[in-house]
Amino acid sequence: MLEDLKGNVWQANLELVLKGLVALTFGNVSGFDRASGLVAIKPSGIAYDALKARDIVLIDLEGKVVEGKLRPSSDAPTHLALYKAFPEIRGISHGHSPAATAFAQAAAEIPCYGTTHADHFNGAVPVTRFLTKKEVSADYEAKTGAVIIERFESGNINPLELPAVLVAGHGPFTWGLSPGSAVRNAVILETVAHMAIQTRLIRKDARVLPGYIREKHHRRKHGPDAYYGQGKEK
Amino acid sequence: MLEDLKGNVWQANLELVLKGLVALTFGNVSGFDRASGLVAIKPSGIAYDALKARDIVLIDLEGKVVEGKLRPSSDAPTHLALYKAFPEIRGISHGHSPAATAFAQAAAEIPCYGTTHADHFNGAVPVTRFLTKKEVSADYEAKTGAVIIERFESGNINPLELPAVLVAGHGPFTWGLSPGSAVRNAVILETVAHMAIQTRLIRKDARVLPGYIREKHHRRKHGPDAYYGQGKEK
Amino acid sequence: MLEDLKGNVWQANLELVLKGLVALTFGNVSGFDRASGLVAIKPSGIAYDALKARDIVLIDLEGKVVEGKLRPSSDAPTHLALYKAFPEIRGISHGHSPAATAFAQAAAEIPCYGTTHADHFNGAVPVTRFLTKKEVSADYEAKTGAVIIERFESGNINPLELPAVLVAGHGPFTWGLSPGSAVRNAVILETVAHMAIQTRLIRKDARVLPGYIREKHHRRKHGPDAYYGQGKEK
Amino acid sequence: MLEDLKGNVWQANLELVLKGLVALTFGNVSGFDRASGLVAIKPSGIAYDALKARDIVLIDLEGKVVEGKLRPSSDAPTHLALYKAFPEIRGISHGHSPAATAFAQAAAEIPCYGTTHADHFNGAVPVTRFLTKKEVSADYEAKTGAVIIERFESGNINPLELPAVLVAGHGPFTWGLSPGSAVRNAVILETVAHMAIQTRLIRKDARVLPGYIREKHHRRKHGPDAYYGQGKEK
Repeated sequence: MLEDLKGNVWQANLELVLKGLVALTFGNVSGFDRASGLVAIKPSGIAYDALKARDIVLIDLEGKVVEGKLRPSSDAPTHLALYKAFPEIRGISHGHSPAATAFAQAAAEIPCYGTTHADHFNGAVPVTRFLTKKEVSADYEAKTGAVIIERFESGNINPLELPAVLVAGHGPFTWGLSPGSAVRNAVILETVAHMAIQTRLIRKDARVLPGYIREKHHRRKHGPDAYYGQGKEK
Repeated sequence: MLEDLKGNVWQANLELVLKGLVALTFGNVSGFDRASGLVAIKPSGIAYDALKARDIVLIDLEGKVVEGKLRPSSDAPTHLALYKAFPEIRGISHGHSPAATAFAQAAAEIPCYGTTHADHFNGAVPVTRFLTKKEVSADYEAKTGAVIIERFESGNINPLELPAVLVAGHGPFTWGLSPGSAVRNAVILETVAHMAIQTRLIRKDARVLPGYIREKHHRRKHGPDAYYGQGKEK
Repeated sequence: MLEDLKGNVWQANLELVLKGLVALTFGNVSGFDRASGLVAIKPSGIAYDALKARDIVLIDLEGKVVEGKLRPSSDAPTHLALYKAFPEIRGISHGHSPAATAFAQAAAEIPCYGTTHADHFNGAVPVTRFLTKKEVSADYEAKTGAVIIERFESGNINPLELPAVLVAGHGPFTWGLSPGSAVRNAVILETVAHMAIQTRLIRKDARVLPGYIREKHHRRKHGPDAYYGQGKEK
Repeated sequence: MLEDLKGNVWQANLELVLKGLVALTFGNVSGFDRASGLVAIKPSGIAYDALKARDIVLIDLEGKVVEGKLRPSSDAPTHLALYKAFPEIRGISHGHSPAATAFAQAAAEIPCYGTTHADHFNGAVPVTRFLTKKEVSADYEAKTGAVIIERFESGNINPLELPAVLVAGHGPFTWGLSPGSAVRNAVILETVAHMAIQTRLIRKDARVLPGYIREKHHRRKHGPDAYYGQGKEK
């Protein structure tokens, strides 16, 4: 069932490793098929070099395993919460890449210092609050999804214009219109986070990119007036 | 038409990736054939591993496509402005390599701290001003070229002695006497920018290289008294 | 004798190199077979690319060579002291990976800034005191083991919950339930140390992860209530 | 003539690239045959991937080419000055590896912060003064050798116990009892320099390793009481 989606999710999980975004078994990528309401996700704690497309687990939006012999990633409830709250997204990636995780550990957002950032994220990459003791004690992973959603709602942030978040003390989640684009956003996020640290080493009080340049770059790549790439009509 | 130039531009674009200077589809290299007045440039938003020599687009100095089925890089107008203003250059490279981009994001020039820098860039690598809101709203990429040229003219900088610039909030452009040398200068620029950050971590108020050593090293490799390499007569 | 153990120790030593944790001949991994009371360990100063499984030396807990033609690692007495003091461990890894060694050189513990750390180390990774002049002058390597044990005893630290230590001015030792898990802990330790440095570059006074999140993450992977991975019953 | 030496020098030059210590054509390694009084050295400005063993140039101690069709490295006079002043050394390596060069650019010595350093360099790696305008204007490369020798003489430093130096504003030179050991010392120097920068990021006022530990580690590997490795008798 949903062999294509499972294949894409499998490839996207391997891409996460190839790009150097995870060490050992950290990290997981999922994909969502809205027609069937099913999510394909990496099984928990499986070494990447042993992972096969047929190991990818299919679960419904309540977390029930529909197909697969292995347990889904322990982070699955976070993915499910995001698919329910952000109805347009079709892929989610989670890893512990060093620079983005360092921002999460510092409980600091990643300011938009340049056009590399603006090309992909239209504003600072937000950071959640820490979960409370109560939230940690029951349904921890679902509550992780809840604080992400809370951050986007309270900040009135559009998840399609800002397809990334940092969970305080934990690490980044990114998403996109496919499992592959979720992983591509994870690659960019790490690049952008690394550059932000270097920028501040050069100038402690570096200023964020003027808003009109940020908007220009984002619109150049995304939305109705985009003119980057080869266009969809080709 | 101009198959050699297109081949060189294709190779130089791949070199940009091999040297780790770009992630995903960021970055572009072009080459200029002064005899025909044509520029060969990477198409926009094509993945590097899918790029073929025949995908390289030929455009004239006004940006009109002369040969090729794909749209040229959206940064093409910046390249064209530089070829018009700096008549001796034959190749231009643009990427978002992390350390050089960090200096651009900090809107800070890269001081000449040592002979690695002086061997290739005869002085601090300059940074442009930010573009104004008006410049961004129309002909953004051509205006990006204009602020680069403005910086070299106002600073009375020789583009052959200093074949690199940082666009504030954006990233580096480098050039040279061929597409390949433009990419080589991009490699050196990233190395030199990374070393400059490390130098300041060791000594916050590091002093720039004495001018007489900088001149010595630059002249050792470039100009009439150069004695590095095997000489042109061989 | 103990060919399986020797094979595992050989592979774990090579893994140490593959993961980029050692340069040249630095570093060594050992394994312990409690039934026979023997330790398999890398020979001293052998280049990794020349190392063969049959070069692995077998020694008893007093350091006497039982099998093998080469001298055991000069750090063997440190390994032996740890196997005697921490009876459950079955593998030890020692290297000079850059970020973990930097903490050791700064004589600073690695604070638990996030869940990547908490998943593997339940608290700050401790640092020993410097050895005294007297301790250095005789039985230096055994005394290195002694200050590690002293640190765990005085701090009442459980070596299974915190399978890593930094020897002040020297570098990290990690351990585990097999030679391979000792090396995996060395990989994580380096990742976590690198992230900690980056975290402090972002926020000088970064706070450690709240204790209830640290405990949650550690218990999610380790101990009776663990629910990460595929479980032992499978 | 001296085919073995030329082969070793060729391999050592390639090793310099493989270890990531040079970019493009930066850097050069030489070897000295005391019996004949000849030095084998890399030719100037040749790309490493085109370099062949037969391209290695033989010169005498006055710099006269004895065999070879290419010009020797422009840094040859620096190598010759060191071979004359430090009679025991048989190989010299020069490159612009980033962390060691950053210390040179900051005109700062590399303090001995840990045993990785002490295992190879018995004390802080010294930095020369900047050359004067007059020294730069004539025989620049020979004068570079002279300021190195001046630093070792004024500091009463033993070049066999401290086989490395930083030339202010320029970069590192390392040496050893063979071309290969000169390159190995360059690898260690870069590692140690990188760790020193990281150490100071963790603790700004990090203390150097106590002298008795530094001596212990150095003697463990070098000199009459060494007990690291497999010994010479084997």
